Amino acid sequence: MSLSYSALKGATSETVRQAIRTGQYRGHTAGLCPGLLQANLVILPEDYALDFMRFCQRNPRACPLVGVSDTGVPSIEMLGHFDLRSDLPAYNAYRSGVLADSPSDISTLWRDDLVAFALGCSFTFEAALQAAGIALWHIENDTTVPMFRSAIRAKSAGPFEGPVVVSMRAVPQERLTEVQAISARFPHAHGAPVHTGDPAKIGIADLNRPDWGDPAPVPPDHVPVFWACGVTPQAAIAAARPSFCITHKPGHMLIADIPDQAEALDILDLP
Amino acid sequence: MSLSYSALKGATSETVRQAIRTGQYRGHTAGLCPGLLQANLVILPEDYALDFMRFCQRNPRACPLVGVSDTGVPSIEMLGHFDLRSDLPAYNAYRSGVLADSPSDISTLWRDDLVAFALGCSFTFEAALQAAGIALWHIENDTTVPMFRSAIRAKSAGPFEGPVVVSMRAVPQERLTEVQAISARFPHAHGAPVHTGDPAKIGIADLNRPDWGDPAPVPPDHVPVFWACGVTPQAAIAAARPSFCITHKPGHMLIADIPDQAEALDILDLP
Repeated sequence: MSLSYSALKGATSETVRQAIRTGQYRGHTAGLCPGLLQANLVILPEDYALDFMRFCQRNPRACPLVGVSDTGVPSIEMLGHFDLRSDLPAYNAYRSGVLADSPSDISTLWRDDLVAFALGCSFTFEAALQAAGIALWHIENDTTVPMFRSAIRAKSAGPFEGPVVVSMRAVPQERLTEVQAISARFPHAHGAPVHTGDPAKIGIADLNRPDWGDPAPVPPDHVPVFWACGVTPQAAIAAARPSFCITHKPGHMLIADIPDQAEALDILDLP
Repeated sequence: MSLSYSALKGATSETVRQAIRTGQYRGHTAGLCPGLLQANLVILPEDYALDFMRFCQRNPRACPLVGVSDTGVPSIEMLGHFDLRSDLPAYNAYRSGVLADSPSDISTLWRDDLVAFALGCSFTFEAALQAAGIALWHIENDTTVPMFRSAIRAKSAGPFEGPVVVSMRAVPQERLTEVQAISARFPHAHGAPVHTGDPAKIGIADLNRPDWGDPAPVPPDHVPVFWACGVTPQAAIAAARPSFCITHKPGHMLIADIPDQAEALDILDLP
């Protein structure tokens, strides 16, 4: 049997993770397990890992590293107790930079030379925005946030290069300053917006045609606000064409065991 | 000829860097070039670079990465225009984890397989503390801050493991809260203290016998405050015994071209 998004909304992390692990839920994770950190996932052969980690270090807004596995180990101890091979609802597997498959389990694809990277995710500041009473259209309408390739270039590292991918949320004009301040509190989750207002200024021609996710409206008296997005590494991977790579499927994230609202150093603290 | 610390205090970064590059100044850099970021330096063969970068990611208070070079390139573009082989006043070179030499120039030691890591440094928050009117004994007395191996264990990564090394500054009791808040603003420069008060609680037997640097007094009505310190990786390197390694000599830092007081994402921002 399969479970619907609404059946899992409000469920405990045990219930959600169990539903994912057993293949009963393969949908997106936005709004699930409120209070827990969600993260983007990138898995690469060790040969690419140092360059990819340099790419993340040089592009911290787009690629805020919150955890890195040991080589060949499908878990990230600092972030909780999960199996990276089975505990995300959907993955994208790439060969030579080309999408080869979107499985819901990667146990048969796992190898001893793989390194997993967890990158902070916009869901963290979205939860904080919602707690402040700011409505988010894509969550209320059970869609995936719209994401765009921007004209802003990421800083390259080895073969990894490409555009900064941004996500867009429409914000009421009078709450713009507050929204910027709230998201800036979470540098491990993309931090403050990279752009506010005219999409053309960062090279986005049509807000109704996102490169990933679903379109979302910008109502009257609202402003489109753009944050650097964890899909940025996926674009860099398409450029780097690594022999092999697995990522989360956009919107279908790793759910960790640590608090969502922890600020930068708190989530990566001393023992 | 050689130049004294007091001759360079207040000098421009061009003057200071020129004095260092030409071997006229080989002293510590605390308090020099106010307004510019200073950083700890670790240089390792590429074979060790991924594990070392994981060590930094897992111990962000002790090892806040602010820049990583490309392999074989003795500069870090994001941090400014300097030559890592000549622009620090003193280095420590290790072979198999054992200190082999403390040269003032490493041009003849540089190799095509080396990777350089710059780690944020306490000088950043020290400048902010001084700006708030909090006196720092070691700067006023032209000594190196006292540093200790603590009983707190760093999170390991591959062969890199060991104690969290801490630096100590005595703070007036009534300004303690303020000092904690100021340093917390700089997560890329060790952030908030890891311990305040009784040194024995983190395994320090005698404040007058630091493992690195010079002793500093704790006057009446002052509290010893301990921050995670960029010498932590040097202790981890002693444990890992890499075939080859170069670090800055403690207190003798890399002076970058970017503002000291920039906060986390600002110093590593989008173009």
